[in-house]
Amino acid sequence: RVIHTVSAYAGDIDLGPYRHYMQKEIFEQPRAITDTLEGVQGFVPELFGTSAGAVFKDIDAIQILACGTSLYSGMTARYWLESLTGLPTQVEIASEYRYRTPAVNPNALIVVISQSGETADTLAALKYAKELGHRHSLAICNVGTSAMVRETELSYLTRAGTEIGVASTKAFTTQLTALFLLTLTLAKMRGRLSDEQEHAHLKNLRHLPTAIQSVLALEPQIIAWADAFARKENALFLGRGMHYPIALEGALKLKEISYIHAEAYPAGELKHGPLALVTEEMPVVTVAPNDSLIEKLKSNMQEVRARGGQLYVFADADSHISSSEGLHVIRLPEHYGLLSPILHVIPLQLLAYHTALARGTDVDKPRNLAKSVTVE
Amino acid sequence: RVIHTVSAYAGDIDLGPYRHYMQKEIFEQPRAITDTLEGVQGFVPELFGTSAGAVFKDIDAIQILACGTSLYSGMTARYWLESLTGLPTQVEIASEYRYRTPAVNPNALIVVISQSGETADTLAALKYAKELGHRHSLAICNVGTSAMVRETELSYLTRAGTEIGVASTKAFTTQLTALFLLTLTLAKMRGRLSDEQEHAHLKNLRHLPTAIQSVLALEPQIIAWADAFARKENALFLGRGMHYPIALEGALKLKEISYIHAEAYPAGELKHGPLALVTEEMPVVTVAPNDSLIEKLKSNMQEVRARGGQLYVFADADSHISSSEGLHVIRLPEHYGLLSPILHVIPLQLLAYHTALARGTDVDKPRNLAKSVTVE
Repeated sequence: RVIHTVSAYAGDIDLGPYRHYMQKEIFEQPRAITDTLEGVQGFVPELFGTSAGAVFKDIDAIQILACGTSLYSGMTARYWLESLTGLPTQVEIASEYRYRTPAVNPNALIVVISQSGETADTLAALKYAKELGHRHSLAICNVGTSAMVRETELSYLTRAGTEIGVASTKAFTTQLTALFLLTLTLAKMRGRLSDEQEHAHLKNLRHLPTAIQSVLALEPQIIAWADAFARKENALFLGRGMHYPIALEGALKLKEISYIHAEAYPAGELKHGPLALVTEEMPVVTVAPNDSLIEKLKSNMQEVRARGGQLYVFADADSHISSSEGLHVIRLPEHYGLLSPILHVIPLQLLAYHTALARGTDVDKPRNLAKSVTVE
Repeated sequence: RVIHTVSAYAGDIDLGPYRHYMQKEIFEQPRAITDTLEGVQGFVPELFGTSAGAVFKDIDAIQILACGTSLYSGMTARYWLESLTGLPTQVEIASEYRYRTPAVNPNALIVVISQSGETADTLAALKYAKELGHRHSLAICNVGTSAMVRETELSYLTRAGTEIGVASTKAFTTQLTALFLLTLTLAKMRGRLSDEQEHAHLKNLRHLPTAIQSVLALEPQIIAWADAFARKENALFLGRGMHYPIALEGALKLKEISYIHAEAYPAGELKHGPLALVTEEMPVVTVAPNDSLIEKLKSNMQEVRARGGQLYVFADADSHISSSEGLHVIRLPEHYGLLSPILHVIPLQLLAYHTALARGTDVDKPRNLAKSVTVE
């Protein structure tokens, strides 16, 4: 297997030019992803442990268990896993799974995701899954010495470096990176990835840090939005498909550090209730990459506009969406296909950060929250 | 099969002693459930159609597809289905399922749920599932002549009668009743239900309308809470296990008709973000039946109280939770085991109704929303 040395990243403690650890950690994401991809030459099971080849041949489904931000990385990965590998994939909140009687497929690979590797509910869910008869488990964690890594057969260590800000940022995008590697490895083993596709994906992954850098350069445009957001007490976030969990993560970031009541919905559910909340006082943030769902999303945006809602849209360079009355648009430099969620979460992190800054909250230590939830 | 005559219920149009259709429909629930259970003498596949016996033998999983309130009835049923039948059960938002490439198990029974039977996304998701190779489908609808009933092999008609209020109430509880019948029928066929258990469940089902009547008698206590709620702009709803979807439904009702930004969380996720929103301005509604999760829930409630949050708790008669500073408790007359979600949603419907009344909104026709979402 590829040796993942646990190295203390020298830049962890100094704030350098940044005002908060969260801002620093947002800007560290190109480096964190580069490090997480270090040594990856192709999509081989050995990336996940010496026995991964045998384990991956032995599974016929995937069960992801996680909490909070890690849950949203799992939810994003489900879209990748089902479409590229054909393996039925379920994602469940660890604190729900551990207290119910699930129907058990012992051939499903349990995947636990946690920055610290010590999240109490996720750890308990892992133990419960084993008691229920699950034979195979894999951890995606940022701490190699954690309980979760010790208690799973396989693991992939993200190399985000120490994350100090309570609101997770670089841990999330490196988790997504690891989950994409898992997806492609399983797809390849199952004969669903051609050499040509493998090379194209490797190329896109390697270019990802540069692509993130271009998205980070949008910071001044996002700062210009933050003042308007800082005056709001509520917000809706909309996304579709693999960007729905990105909308969830964007809303969670805003909630955690700005204390604005932000809630995410899959855009198709808008007419089934949340549209009643839309007025000009309720900003609606829309994650609108230029993919096959863009036309459906535009129709959802028109519903919001027709009710006087103010739209804040993160589009791609080639989307045909222009700013107009009540419709504010920031364009990401390029559409990035399957990896688009990793790019689209970044402006949402920056929006939460700068909104919190404008509201004067304690960004790195938001009220009521701890960095890792290691007790129930 | 049992003949379900589609009869126009004479009480549909007159408001009688009620101020709004929604209130009338909330109070019709004992009658609606009695009618939905009419002719049910046991848990036999014929309840769902003449070919149901053969179909139910041929399936090894369940895939529920729905939108809005119907989605929440499906989410509740998942807890029943997995624990009582052992069949792996997935629940997915129809507007998400229809636009992604899922891993397909053709032996999974597709279950679509819709009051009108015409919900555009659910209907499209059903068609898509068939294209993907699913061979068996079942509709749970309130309109026997609907497209969804025509396009599925099996069906169960809820007999809620015409529902006029945009915010669904009696359609939801009758859907849950139908889904419970489905669960017990599958459990019995799979040898997981003894005669004794069957009789006990039948008895509980038959007593359900009376139990609901006792819960409806709590209306004066709920009216006393509604004034405090009417002055709020935000609320959190918490639940665990099969009462988490009930918290979702309670938040949706409040959103739809009072325009208060209410959001539900599974209580275990509280520390992973939403706790940052808790102040004395943010009421926290807790669905707290006296089941195995009550101690965990009490610990979540303490977290809220420690941050100054105002708790509004729906407990059961025998719960050891008493009102105190910042902790308001309404007790349901009895704990109702597996059917508890059907009872616990009722005070949440009444809370939404009376809060909306106190705010003076148009309860039966809330802004921006249509009764059935028959276009995308």
